[in-house]
Amino acid sequence: MFLNAPSVERLIESFRGLPGVGKRTAERFALHILSAPQDQALVLSEAVREARERITTCSTCYNLTESDPCGICTSEKRDKSLICVVERPIGAIAVEKGGAYRGLYHVLHGALDPLEGIGPGELRLDGLMRRFQDGAVKEVIVATNATAEGEATALYLSRQIKAHNLAASHNIAVSRIAHGVPMGGGLEFSDEATLTHALDGRKEM
Amino acid sequence: MFLNAPSVERLIESFRGLPGVGKRTAERFALHILSAPQDQALVLSEAVREARERITTCSTCYNLTESDPCGICTSEKRDKSLICVVERPIGAIAVEKGGAYRGLYHVLHGALDPLEGIGPGELRLDGLMRRFQDGAVKEVIVATNATAEGEATALYLSRQIKAHNLAASHNIAVSRIAHGVPMGGGLEFSDEATLTHALDGRKEM
Repeated sequence: MFLNAPSVERLIESFRGLPGVGKRTAERFALHILSAPQDQALVLSEAVREARERITTCSTCYNLTESDPCGICTSEKRDKSLICVVERPIGAIAVEKGGAYRGLYHVLHGALDPLEGIGPGELRLDGLMRRFQDGAVKEVIVATNATAEGEATALYLSRQIKAHNLAASHNIAVSRIAHGVPMGGGLEFSDEATLTHALDGRKEM
Repeated sequence: MFLNAPSVERLIESFRGLPGVGKRTAERFALHILSAPQDQALVLSEAVREARERITTCSTCYNLTESDPCGICTSEKRDKSLICVVERPIGAIAVEKGGAYRGLYHVLHGALDPLEGIGPGELRLDGLMRRFQDGAVKEVIVATNATAEGEATALYLSRQIKAHNLAASHNIAVSRIAHGVPMGGGLEFSDEATLTHALDGRKEM
């Protein structure tokens, strides 16, 4: 047992819960915490507790936020006719970092994955449909991941929205983000599926 | 700003204090904490606080421990004539994992580094000398790192112990751990300094 101390074992186990952290990294983190000044360790402890207690999900877009509704949903500067649907909060953060998108978001908190038992009921889909009621939304950009689950979710969403259009006499457009060779990426580093998408999605110059 | 939430910023900053954790990894950790069930986040918060509060340094060997003196210093099964000197607790843990060493430890909590202003007074050297008083110690194995600082510390220690031998009419042996090609490592992966050490330290077969 590491240092023969149950409290250290518990600390290592807790760190191992973080994404991408194995046994050795968790041990390194634990040793750092134990060697650091007491203040510094307590700051981390407090930051984890505080963030987890303060952060909630926006009741409109289900993104993570300190205030509900979130800053993006309430902002006067955002284009309320546009909703970008992402699987997870990190997707919204990635799009925000891009800096070009001025619409709203909708976070599904997952993607359809029948093998894992994740159907439409497990995602925040009802919440999305509710946002169409006032007629302000003109387009939904589906930015789910380019994985089998993300593609299935995109297809399902597009069908749901088209069904909604028919039922509610709305005319909400549905679009999917482009897939292709990443900027700065050489063709030789792209896999076949990406290249096929890049060719299919070619644009006239 | 990430999520526009000060508590999340503080959380990311705290994670960045961990060894080898950059901005992106810290953000990933923070998102994990925010997406995880509240319990799981609080377990990490609590584990950090608890470990930091419970773990102290052994007043004999300066290793990290929950009880003072530590389990190794008080164990009847350890060879009290042998002290292995390491720079940091992780060094003692590494030797313990090897499983072959049955002696005691002494953790210096650093190595001599004049450029960083770390002289003998900054290390736990007095504590080591004090352990020689009862005459039980027969050999000190210097297992400081194979870096310039570790080598300088080893040399300094060996001189101090020899001076102690003269002054106190003791006969404590000082040895340095072997340096060479790591087990399982091909010659082609070893640097020149390692190979030079490996050749110098050759043993008759």
